[in-house]
Amino acid sequence: MEGADYGVLAPAWAGTAASALASDAAFVQGMLDAEAAWVQVQADAGLCSIEDAQAVREVASVERYDLALLASRTPDGANALIPLLGMMRELLTHDGAAKTASTALHRGATSQDIIDTALMLILSKAITLTLADLRSTASGLAALAREHRSTVCIARSLTQHALPTTLGWKAASWLSAVLDAERQLDAATGQLRLQWGGAVGTLASLEQLLSRHTETTATSKSLASQLAGLLGLADTGTPWHTNRMPILQLGSALGSAIAALGTFGADVLTASRPEIGELSEPREAGKGGSSAMPQKQNPVRSVLLRNAAFSAPGLLSTLFTAAGTAVDERPDGGWHAEWSALRELARLASGAAFHASFLANGLGVNLPAIERNLALGGDAVLSERLAAVLAPLVVGGKPAIQSLVRRSLDEDVSLRELLRLEIPTHDLSDQDLDELLDPAGYLGAADRFTDTVLADYSARKELWQSRN
Amino acid sequence: MEGADYGVLAPAWAGTAASALASDAAFVQGMLDAEAAWVQVQADAGLCSIEDAQAVREVASVERYDLALLASRTPDGANALIPLLGMMRELLTHDGAAKTASTALHRGATSQDIIDTALMLILSKAITLTLADLRSTASGLAALAREHRSTVCIARSLTQHALPTTLGWKAASWLSAVLDAERQLDAATGQLRLQWGGAVGTLASLEQLLSRHTETTATSKSLASQLAGLLGLADTGTPWHTNRMPILQLGSALGSAIAALGTFGADVLTASRPEIGELSEPREAGKGGSSAMPQKQNPVRSVLLRNAAFSAPGLLSTLFTAAGTAVDERPDGGWHAEWSALRELARLASGAAFHASFLANGLGVNLPAIERNLALGGDAVLSERLAAVLAPLVVGGKPAIQSLVRRSLDEDVSLRELLRLEIPTHDLSDQDLDELLDPAGYLGAADRFTDTVLADYSARKELWQSRN
Amino acid sequence: MEGADYGVLAPAWAGTAASALASDAAFVQGMLDAEAAWVQVQADAGLCSIEDAQAVREVASVERYDLALLASRTPDGANALIPLLGMMRELLTHDGAAKTASTALHRGATSQDIIDTALMLILSKAITLTLADLRSTASGLAALAREHRSTVCIARSLTQHALPTTLGWKAASWLSAVLDAERQLDAATGQLRLQWGGAVGTLASLEQLLSRHTETTATSKSLASQLAGLLGLADTGTPWHTNRMPILQLGSALGSAIAALGTFGADVLTASRPEIGELSEPREAGKGGSSAMPQKQNPVRSVLLRNAAFSAPGLLSTLFTAAGTAVDERPDGGWHAEWSALRELARLASGAAFHASFLANGLGVNLPAIERNLALGGDAVLSERLAAVLAPLVVGGKPAIQSLVRRSLDEDVSLRELLRLEIPTHDLSDQDLDELLDPAGYLGAADRFTDTVLADYSARKELWQSRN
Amino acid sequence: MEGADYGVLAPAWAGTAASALASDAAFVQGMLDAEAAWVQVQADAGLCSIEDAQAVREVASVERYDLALLASRTPDGANALIPLLGMMRELLTHDGAAKTASTALHRGATSQDIIDTALMLILSKAITLTLADLRSTASGLAALAREHRSTVCIARSLTQHALPTTLGWKAASWLSAVLDAERQLDAATGQLRLQWGGAVGTLASLEQLLSRHTETTATSKSLASQLAGLLGLADTGTPWHTNRMPILQLGSALGSAIAALGTFGADVLTASRPEIGELSEPREAGKGGSSAMPQKQNPVRSVLLRNAAFSAPGLLSTLFTAAGTAVDERPDGGWHAEWSALRELARLASGAAFHASFLANGLGVNLPAIERNLALGGDAVLSERLAAVLAPLVVGGKPAIQSLVRRSLDEDVSLRELLRLEIPTHDLSDQDLDELLDPAGYLGAADRFTDTVLADYSARKELWQSRN
Repeated sequence: MEGADYGVLAPAWAGTAASALASDAAFVQGMLDAEAAWVQVQADAGLCSIEDAQAVREVASVERYDLALLASRTPDGANALIPLLGMMRELLTHDGAAKTASTALHRGATSQDIIDTALMLILSKAITLTLADLRSTASGLAALAREHRSTVCIARSLTQHALPTTLGWKAASWLSAVLDAERQLDAATGQLRLQWGGAVGTLASLEQLLSRHTETTATSKSLASQLAGLLGLADTGTPWHTNRMPILQLGSALGSAIAALGTFGADVLTASRPEIGELSEPREAGKGGSSAMPQKQNPVRSVLLRNAAFSAPGLLSTLFTAAGTAVDERPDGGWHAEWSALRELARLASGAAFHASFLANGLGVNLPAIERNLALGGDAVLSERLAAVLAPLVVGGKPAIQSLVRRSLDEDVSLRELLRLEIPTHDLSDQDLDELLDPAGYLGAADRFTDTVLADYSARKELWQSRN
Repeated sequence: MEGADYGVLAPAWAGTAASALASDAAFVQGMLDAEAAWVQVQADAGLCSIEDAQAVREVASVERYDLALLASRTPDGANALIPLLGMMRELLTHDGAAKTASTALHRGATSQDIIDTALMLILSKAITLTLADLRSTASGLAALAREHRSTVCIARSLTQHALPTTLGWKAASWLSAVLDAERQLDAATGQLRLQWGGAVGTLASLEQLLSRHTETTATSKSLASQLAGLLGLADTGTPWHTNRMPILQLGSALGSAIAALGTFGADVLTASRPEIGELSEPREAGKGGSSAMPQKQNPVRSVLLRNAAFSAPGLLSTLFTAAGTAVDERPDGGWHAEWSALRELARLASGAAFHASFLANGLGVNLPAIERNLALGGDAVLSERLAAVLAPLVVGGKPAIQSLVRRSLDEDVSLRELLRLEIPTHDLSDQDLDELLDPAGYLGAADRFTDTVLADYSARKELWQSRN
Repeated sequence: MEGADYGVLAPAWAGTAASALASDAAFVQGMLDAEAAWVQVQADAGLCSIEDAQAVREVASVERYDLALLASRTPDGANALIPLLGMMRELLTHDGAAKTASTALHRGATSQDIIDTALMLILSKAITLTLADLRSTASGLAALAREHRSTVCIARSLTQHALPTTLGWKAASWLSAVLDAERQLDAATGQLRLQWGGAVGTLASLEQLLSRHTETTATSKSLASQLAGLLGLADTGTPWHTNRMPILQLGSALGSAIAALGTFGADVLTASRPEIGELSEPREAGKGGSSAMPQKQNPVRSVLLRNAAFSAPGLLSTLFTAAGTAVDERPDGGWHAEWSALRELARLASGAAFHASFLANGLGVNLPAIERNLALGGDAVLSERLAAVLAPLVVGGKPAIQSLVRRSLDEDVSLRELLRLEIPTHDLSDQDLDELLDPAGYLGAADRFTDTVLADYSARKELWQSRN
Repeated sequence: MEGADYGVLAPAWAGTAASALASDAAFVQGMLDAEAAWVQVQADAGLCSIEDAQAVREVASVERYDLALLASRTPDGANALIPLLGMMRELLTHDGAAKTASTALHRGATSQDIIDTALMLILSKAITLTLADLRSTASGLAALAREHRSTVCIARSLTQHALPTTLGWKAASWLSAVLDAERQLDAATGQLRLQWGGAVGTLASLEQLLSRHTETTATSKSLASQLAGLLGLADTGTPWHTNRMPILQLGSALGSAIAALGTFGADVLTASRPEIGELSEPREAGKGGSSAMPQKQNPVRSVLLRNAAFSAPGLLSTLFTAAGTAVDERPDGGWHAEWSALRELARLASGAAFHASFLANGLGVNLPAIERNLALGGDAVLSERLAAVLAPLVVGGKPAIQSLVRRSLDEDVSLRELLRLEIPTHDLSDQDLDELLDPAGYLGAADRFTDTVLADYSARKELWQSRN
């Protein structure tokens, strides 16, 4: 039986771009890229030859490695870089590379430099993808908010009907969470830092090397800076081997994105229930069907968003535990626990953003169902308003109104009629009463809130575009 | 870039038997086994032909499937069984099987039946492996406890030296946790239940089928029972589609096993610190070395145990969240979140038990270091005893003794000498004082506790053997 | 501003019996009980006087202590027992107790003995309460299952209508989870173990004391056994200071109970949605009302069950992390993290069981809504059955039936009529077609499953009664 | 038995300012402050009288409320605001306040407005406190880094000795994490947002009120803005009832602070072990003592930091689960689960920062132990350097050097002597060999890294000061 995983148990990201971008193969390619870039930096500084850099580049291709074999050797040193180095050296020999290439390879570096850096590289790609899909999701939600700015629907709290609101403001509320999450994730990309410290975070070996290459003007600082530049990572001037704050900020931002999409998915699931039926997932060929029950269309993308929202929090707790218990110049197990948790968070965020983008841009809105549900509770849905406005007009004030509401519900009689019996038309005309009972007239600041979020979206969108 | 994972980021189980036993391939094989067994049960009951069962068995081999393709189709219905069924049917056609084989395939079943059952199948194998390694770990720890029943060493609390104890009792304490965990995991195997309920847990389709096969004596109950028997799973008489208690008991038991081994690993890590040096991991070729620092021998297996102990709790929390929020006849995302969490817990437990077994059976004990550390605090380590025994002999009682202890530490003078100055020999002979200051004489019930745990081990071991 | 908490932020258990049973005051009383019982055991063995035991008992009343002051001293030694002991000794002096009472107090014990034991004592009470409420919940659910054994309702998967089932089987499914959880929690009470080991788990000080009391026949073993007996805890013969498996088993069982109730609450919340309306919480005076919206009745008890289900998993993960990283003879922070997590789990379980008991015994069933929802999807809800039964009767077989189903949905025409057009009456009489389209005829083994769970309940109930 | 908690089970924050600042009493005061401020805003806008505002202010004092009674009523509506309002109204009546005061109280608001806002208020205070203590911690660590910039010590990875580093760089590494966490927490204060949306986040009731007060120029927008101003919270223009991103950002920042301090505490704990002994907690009267063992000084503050680091991740996972599953216009249980998790995170962060500040500003450094440990591994600790520098000078190159290292360890002979035998003095003088073997000469960029972090600290400190 082979030992590989393909995402068969991870529907939230299986088959999406994130699947490949953050796979073991991608991670190994990240380690190879880091090693190759480092030899390139050395060559540029005259610390090794251009041929050495070329030779290492030749072996820095994941296709040349047996990943199952690599995995099987991983426990020997508790990380994959150690056996990978051995394999790289074998390939250099096989390719007939000069010995100096092997010498330059990994020179002055340590496993943690390469592994942390490779994780940053796959995270960088996954986050780029996630940001794009979050922005596409935001675009879909903004369109929805604009289109349904005046679509009155029922708002619910603790599952029960409460008061009217608009579908526009509901969509804008999802949008506000997505924008907050996008902002946080975008800011967190500044934490995609090169890790470069050598065995214990002092770069002693590299400094030693430089002290013997008196002809070069390169310093450990300039070399790290060039390496970061080549890899597209930030260089904050120090290694961060036991300061795991970058990991926590990245993990939290990924977790926030998943949560922002989770709440969107949760609302779509509720609204997709046949009895409610206000929203429906886009009908797509081959999606959500049931072989046994042809009448059934499952809200699959929302289910996947919820799946991700359930899976992320535990992984995030692992990152915080590992960070908070890190010891020495390299932790004794916590560091190792970060890897798969962080990678999985990246995949879940990316997968969720992918599915959310489809959902937000293709959501079906069922206006008749929205109207039907709004009318379900009758005029009682406006009882808050009635109590406030009509209290001065009836003997007994607010409590009297509230007892009329209850009576109308208990006896199933029209609240309007009960009110009409209680309040003479010279105090409140029929027209005024009708206006009072119109849900569309009791939406408060829903439009203003919708517009505020949409304005925030527009400003943010301009920023995105200005960057391209 | 290919999308498969091999364990490169999961050193705690990469390369161990668990890697393959709980891989995506193994899970898919589990689904295939469940489908094939079900057609076999139907054939045995005369509901389909023996040839149909044979035809399905022919396609029930994971090697015949492209798992990457399967994974890519998994999000369409939010589970892998739906596309797998399609692929199975294609293969049946390809093999020229009778249409009746395709009809019998998955008849009356639902995705959840097959997926839950397949998870139980891979868990069953992983737990069998884990139990064997826990027992081997227990055997190693029992031998250690026996061998070092009288090896006096320092006990520590809150990192500080406290009082003497024995290495035997330390080992017996690890053993007691491993035995508790083994007992819990062994009991949890009773929760490896067949899931069999059809679309909504009523077996309506199957009952419909049976109602039309008037010639068979089979009932839905007898068929489920036979299916469970074929698959080696328990049959409790009902499906458990939204009662996720079996998942929680299995997950908790796996988590307990990981924690029991984690505390063992944590103690070995502490004791392996060069300044302490009481214990060392077995020296094994190719294990724990550092390419840059040949003098360095990393306690790799303990690091992996700690890695697992850090990774498990978050996964377990996912299972409890999913179980506690399950709705309807099939949950809308929580169920999906269980899969990878449960599988990963099984791999971590199995990987940890594998490494612990090596560790427990090859642990190096450094007696000189143990003696050196025990002597490190001088006679003050027995201050509790001295205060209790000598209080009646000095003016000022217990506080006076305690202040002598502090004086000996502050002024770095021998506590024995200070006591000798304070207490005349006719109250306490030199020999009695020496005995009082002998750590080996202040071990309390350490031996009794060690023996109690060893007796428990022996009884448990007899039980294991009686089962084989 | 005072520093006390009363449960204002913990609605799931505030105001229930668990609130007081597991409060700080209750925990301190537990420590006092442990200390008093230990002096009593010493007195019974002749190791101190009866008057000493009486004197300690006099100070072992939580009302005599300023808990805010005690809390403020807690960080000094990182636990509350150390300052409590000082306060106890002050009170002994204040009461004019003999010095020997102070000597006997805590003799041979350590902070962990008292704290772990006190936690077990409050857990014991909280679990007793929880078990009683779980059994009451089970009773309510069993009655519901019996009463609605034949109430046909729609079953849902992934939020969508799937096939008919019965409300009885739904209730029995909740019941099966509650029974599983009750069984697990009941078994876990065997883990309510006395902790008794002295400073480092050797009872050295106690053994020393006994060696000097040559007149007593008591042994450290017999004394621990008597202490366990007095406190109503299990004695397994050894301390478990760094074997935290008992904590994990207790915590997991509490977590399982919370999850079993959470899924019940989640289903009630869904069914309470106005558009669904199949179930409703018992109307109770002062419960679930909204001051602003008199028409609104919130499903408060279900919300609290869900609150607990969301709060528990993170606390449980803390217990597993602490257990898996325990070091030395007393852990350096992990032990301390267990306390509030374990106590909170006990309160959540007890609070949830309290609310669930009311819910299960007073749940409102709205038969018209159940019928309305069942009819919502029309005859298509039986499409699985139709495809299976009618396939042989139409050209095109199963796919043809499925396309009729889809046509009936798309064109909103009666599926019955479409079928009638397709299948001549001599192949299928009108009566047979009606029977085929009757949801009550497609319930499969729902009754058998209901009965199986009810039989399990009855057997379990007999066991409970036999114990009283 | 009373039901209150005082922190007896929470040593990490018991007795610190956070205990009171985030207690139930503080939270209730926060709710009262929010209600009082709202009536004040109404009075300022002419929507009610100054006397009404005064009357509400009179009852807005937590001392006037029975918190145990309040807690007991909390489950009725699943939150404490509902019963609190009732109690406030009773007190208004008792005080003889005008009916209009009661009318203005809570007008247009909903429970969630008050509860979320009150949580922000207590968080605001706790974070202010935490930031101050983080800055004090940073100050202590910066002093330590400066003082020990040239103190050579051993660096460790995976618990084993690796290479030399400096204590200054170790301290600077802790400092870098604390600065990162301080920056994140400082930025998160921008998320301390007013919640103001009325029953369903539309402010419908308030808008209704304003529409009838034609004389006022106030708008719902201006009123919310004034309310935020009075309470010292941010106003982003919209409510965030189901966009829980602010909660996640605050929670993550608190969790990061706890983790940054946890890794500091973990290193101090390791370094405090008697066999290592490089660092020691400040000796403070009454801290860390053991009643039974006078020689024992427990590193209590570090234990508390570790306690917090273990407790936080699970609480954080609860926040992410709740946020990711929020539904409707008010979630059905997830919102309720946030409260105590968020409050507890605030207390843990504040308590940890308090203890860390003492630790960082009073840490004892034991230079002889540092030297002893550095020398423990002999010259082999520089094997990485030797292999790099001396490889060209010996036959066999790097492997030959490494085998000398191993021989020196295995045979316990001086590595210097072995090298001397191998390499003639004309290739390497005695002086050069001695220099090569001097750990102080192999510190790489440790000083540069230390200075980089210290410069970051100085810049940050200037910013802090510029704000005052």
